[in-house]
Amino acid sequence: MTANPDDLSASEIAQAVTARKMSALSVTEAALARIAKHDSILNSFTDVTAERARAKARAVDAALAAGKTVGPLAGVPFAVKNLFDVQGLSTRAGSKINRDLAPSRRDATLIERMEAAGAVLVGALNMGEYAYDFTGENVHDGPSRNPHDPTRMSGGSSGGSGSAVGGRLVPLALGSDTNGSIRVPSSFCGIFGLKPTYGRLSRARSFPFVASFDHLGPFARNVGDLALAYDAMQGPDADDAACSTRPVEPVAPLLSQEIGGLRIAIAGGYFQNNVFPEAVEAVARVAKGLGATRTIEIPEAARARAAAYVISTTEGASLHLDRLRKRPNDFDPAVRDRLLAGAMVPAPLVDRAQKFRRWYRAHVLELFETVDVIIAPATPCVAPKLGQATFVLDGVELPVRANIGIHTQPISFIGLPVVAVPVPLQPMPIGVQIIAAPWREDIALRAAYALERAGVVAAPQPRGL
Amino acid sequence: MTANPDDLSASEIAQAVTARKMSALSVTEAALARIAKHDSILNSFTDVTAERARAKARAVDAALAAGKTVGPLAGVPFAVKNLFDVQGLSTRAGSKINRDLAPSRRDATLIERMEAAGAVLVGALNMGEYAYDFTGENVHDGPSRNPHDPTRMSGGSSGGSGSAVGGRLVPLALGSDTNGSIRVPSSFCGIFGLKPTYGRLSRARSFPFVASFDHLGPFARNVGDLALAYDAMQGPDADDAACSTRPVEPVAPLLSQEIGGLRIAIAGGYFQNNVFPEAVEAVARVAKGLGATRTIEIPEAARARAAAYVISTTEGASLHLDRLRKRPNDFDPAVRDRLLAGAMVPAPLVDRAQKFRRWYRAHVLELFETVDVIIAPATPCVAPKLGQATFVLDGVELPVRANIGIHTQPISFIGLPVVAVPVPLQPMPIGVQIIAAPWREDIALRAAYALERAGVVAAPQPRGL
Repeated sequence: MTANPDDLSASEIAQAVTARKMSALSVTEAALARIAKHDSILNSFTDVTAERARAKARAVDAALAAGKTVGPLAGVPFAVKNLFDVQGLSTRAGSKINRDLAPSRRDATLIERMEAAGAVLVGALNMGEYAYDFTGENVHDGPSRNPHDPTRMSGGSSGGSGSAVGGRLVPLALGSDTNGSIRVPSSFCGIFGLKPTYGRLSRARSFPFVASFDHLGPFARNVGDLALAYDAMQGPDADDAACSTRPVEPVAPLLSQEIGGLRIAIAGGYFQNNVFPEAVEAVARVAKGLGATRTIEIPEAARARAAAYVISTTEGASLHLDRLRKRPNDFDPAVRDRLLAGAMVPAPLVDRAQKFRRWYRAHVLELFETVDVIIAPATPCVAPKLGQATFVLDGVELPVRANIGIHTQPISFIGLPVVAVPVPLQPMPIGVQIIAAPWREDIALRAAYALERAGVVAAPQPRGL
Repeated sequence: MTANPDDLSASEIAQAVTARKMSALSVTEAALARIAKHDSILNSFTDVTAERARAKARAVDAALAAGKTVGPLAGVPFAVKNLFDVQGLSTRAGSKINRDLAPSRRDATLIERMEAAGAVLVGALNMGEYAYDFTGENVHDGPSRNPHDPTRMSGGSSGGSGSAVGGRLVPLALGSDTNGSIRVPSSFCGIFGLKPTYGRLSRARSFPFVASFDHLGPFARNVGDLALAYDAMQGPDADDAACSTRPVEPVAPLLSQEIGGLRIAIAGGYFQNNVFPEAVEAVARVAKGLGATRTIEIPEAARARAAAYVISTTEGASLHLDRLRKRPNDFDPAVRDRLLAGAMVPAPLVDRAQKFRRWYRAHVLELFETVDVIIAPATPCVAPKLGQATFVLDGVELPVRANIGIHTQPISFIGLPVVAVPVPLQPMPIGVQIIAAPWREDIALRAAYALERAGVVAAPQPRGL
């Protein structure tokens, strides 16, 4: 049990609540109080579902009082990026336009599963408009802010998720990752994030962006909590056609397995270029922590990023075409202009990007015949200042927004599972990607756990609050 | 045994050759002689592989003389659309540009399977450039001509296949069908054609057009021969990633099964509009022959055709982009201009077409819960005159080229199996589509066989030779 009750992990809360040393209601009230106190700075929540949370917490307490079993997340507060359907709320997906949608009639599958495990939903979280974002800025709701320096970006598009967990408002949050939207906020906010294998977690009743590489996943401040949340959510779901029917393989019991037998390599070339010194330092620390000396080349990563980009912008444009026609002025102008550009990309280029993608996926999968874990930067730099327009990468001044995801895009594009781990550099943390073969979340999480036990990675205390 | 040896069916030839009443070599020489005599009019062959054919025929005869078993197509001459790889020939795919390709080192899988069953390849057949055609015209090779009236189109893009079988040069031919390229020449040339379920027949070592709905299949002058060829070619093939691993289910033994239990309906709405009187008459005869009175509505067929169109033109443009850049003047100008238009279609429109396609496929598959066979026109009219630019459909003057496939495009787009059956109207025949649920080629072929036995459909004698 840690000293500060705000710092309790999800597993500590669940144990204490299950043992009836703390009530779920008191945990919930404490979370609501933290949100009330700090979110005026962090701006991570767009909706606080206080009454719902209290009702759920009371139900958990009543069940425990009646001697019933509650799940492994008993009484654990969590919040979700506002592209998850929450019963009674319009799923805004970071937009102005979607606020006109009817309130959702049913929670997203992943919320149902978290609550089935005893967790308590306390609200919905700020995000980049329609998830087309790496900054965490939002013209309608204002930016969510970095808990370690509120003048800096939280990262996007799941900025509120990163900010709320990094700022210790909640021990767990859910987000989505199409091109890096879980891994980037994890990196900037100094927390752990899991982007599972494509098709592993149900996306039923969430607002999409690029269906063929949209992923949902959890954020936490330690690997054990990440695994607990992931295990609570794993499993087939007929409501998401892309959700795999593979049986659930719980990872939490595997975390402490030795990693001595794992073949671990550092991504070379593209992933060692386009970085600031802090990313070099972070990757070096993680590599040393895992005993990795070998470098492996992911082929054609720059082309993979370009392909991911053109598929995202065109599928995004397709998704939003009617809204672009009817309500162009209700978009964030920067998002609108990216989508309008996507609306005019000639189709044969996308067809070629898809062909390349099949080639690239096959070749990257081959790499995993000789390696189990690949290490790469999560972001090229620590969180930039809010509003910062450009940075200089390898001597070239580039727009920040588009290039924050330079190291994440070539990975999610082919659906590989990744754990983003926080290296607690001073003054700002930065994340590293621990990448595994499809369906091997267990391997990435075991490596992350070993790093955590060795003290190489950790979620730092928020210094901005 | 029919009177005229030119009229022998594939099964009659195979029986006679197997019984050593005729030699495979004499059958081959007769086919080569027919080609020499008539192809100056029909222009269906671009390559005659006489020496190869004689060698194969001698091998068949030698095997039989040695008491060995030869397959069910022993000594049967056949030819293939020139987009199939034939060892030693450049796969021109109807183009000028592809003639610069190196000669193929190995036959297409389907040729290997036909020859493994004893058939004898006698040549490669004329086709519309890069299979983007419904007319059978070709600016490089000249048009293949209709065997019933050489001033008329053979239909495309497998025009040479239709012309060679309809003109009785060979009893069997192979072609490809993306939007109608087997069914249209079958209709215009008065023969039977099978477009199998997408993924049923291997496309390995053939030149593609739109990979997600390219199909290969056979042409014949009777249903039994069509089934024999199909059975010889069925089966998984690791060389074509889209080729299904479903086990082979031979159809030839099933043809004479009663069809009394089949639920048969006529496609309504869209498929009853956009037709000339001859198509109405042909569908009525087939419906009567099958005892069909019910009409069924295929939902959103016009939109399906539009979607098939936009996907074809953009994927075609993607496939040919480098050739369009480097050798624009070596294309048929009409094909080039369609592909250039496709090169500029905005990607979101294609994404939406693909989304619609998934919706449409699911809804059409639902129809097959209440019906086994759907009857629809194969073409809106009998073969137009060569060079004919427009026709009047439902009071609107429309370009012929684009609209010949108006009834075939909404079917192949979702991969349904179809047998095109010839109704021997005077003076020109016209085809009808017998459409079944995926993997139910047997049902479509049984219906075709029943129609053939009842004398409703038949391949007429060529009147143009």
